[in-house]
Amino acid sequence: MRYRKIPDETVRRLPQYLRAVSFVHKQGCKYVSSQELAERLHMKSPQIRKDLSYFGAFGVKGTGYPVETLLGRIREILKLNTPQKAALIGAGRLGKALASYPGFRLYGFDIVEVFDRSPRKIGRKIGGVEIKDVAHLGDLGKRGIRLALLAVPAGAAQEVAERLVEAGVRGILNLAPCYLKLPKRIKVVTIDIAMELGILPYYV
Amino acid sequence: MRYRKIPDETVRRLPQYLRAVSFVHKQGCKYVSSQELAERLHMKSPQIRKDLSYFGAFGVKGTGYPVETLLGRIREILKLNTPQKAALIGAGRLGKALASYPGFRLYGFDIVEVFDRSPRKIGRKIGGVEIKDVAHLGDLGKRGIRLALLAVPAGAAQEVAERLVEAGVRGILNLAPCYLKLPKRIKVVTIDIAMELGILPYYV
Repeated sequence: MRYRKIPDETVRRLPQYLRAVSFVHKQGCKYVSSQELAERLHMKSPQIRKDLSYFGAFGVKGTGYPVETLLGRIREILKLNTPQKAALIGAGRLGKALASYPGFRLYGFDIVEVFDRSPRKIGRKIGGVEIKDVAHLGDLGKRGIRLALLAVPAGAAQEVAERLVEAGVRGILNLAPCYLKLPKRIKVVTIDIAMELGILPYYV
Repeated sequence: MRYRKIPDETVRRLPQYLRAVSFVHKQGCKYVSSQELAERLHMKSPQIRKDLSYFGAFGVKGTGYPVETLLGRIREILKLNTPQKAALIGAGRLGKALASYPGFRLYGFDIVEVFDRSPRKIGRKIGGVEIKDVAHLGDLGKRGIRLALLAVPAGAAQEVAERLVEAGVRGILNLAPCYLKLPKRIKVVTIDIAMELGILPYYV
């Protein structure tokens, strides 16, 4: 089921709710209030109540949201209740770190293919997966791989991204410090680590 | 000079403007309009004009913003016009990737100290910097290091973060998939790569 009416801004916040609610769940709590979530996430509780109201009204006044139901609902909406196959492009230092990043499994992501262009790397393994030649992506979409993690140098990112789209990929997590120009139907999330660091000096 | 009246939300967007304006500058453009920036950043141009208006009115109607002046102004406000020393905590796979990440230099960041707790790593070098024992952080603040990149496992992050604060660090880029509870005067930016990936399945 797809809840079409959820605004993008709310979808962007759902993984944060998922992480916070998972934490509360691990602590053994049965209910969590929007105030608790707000405090944990440095957000405002009316915002959280509004976001969660898109999934139907199941919060209990004075008690909060049932933790397990909320967890299941968020996972269902984000389609994280079934494992998600992903391809990793770029087996450099960042790629290696990603391939062994324990956080991905928490969200049900599984890196099932790794590609690089370097002949020195092709045929070797990272994270238990053999590195293949990026020139032969094949039809990733038909193999059920519609997500890709892009960890290539900025200069190569656009070209590789276009080939991923041709190969049937529909969502890209871009870790190269550059923008990708792709068809609108392709969802791109860019993480530029240096850019995130960029706001800190203002505050220190 | 510190422009105290700039809202946090605007500060958060400044590094994005910096990257987009740097790109336009490299292309040799003298002026850039808010529409061009909006298109490049998938934002709305009135938002951009409002954000940039905090630095004084220097856009030219029909022509746009003078690129060099704008670049200088954003760098000045973000305090990126002088090099920023940073310490890296955690010399695992992610730490290694960060130590050699070319993007940091673009923003004037310099990783001058690396710490880890593993005896196997202490004394070795990454990114040309010797790895020291995290048990001996010393007074980082007095050595001009007020920024830290935290790339340790989630279970260790809170404890290490507290010790960084004691050592004089005032801004932390947290790459561990967890929240840090620190005094309000400490600025923390958390990047959870899996969480960013978490929104993609919804769209694909």
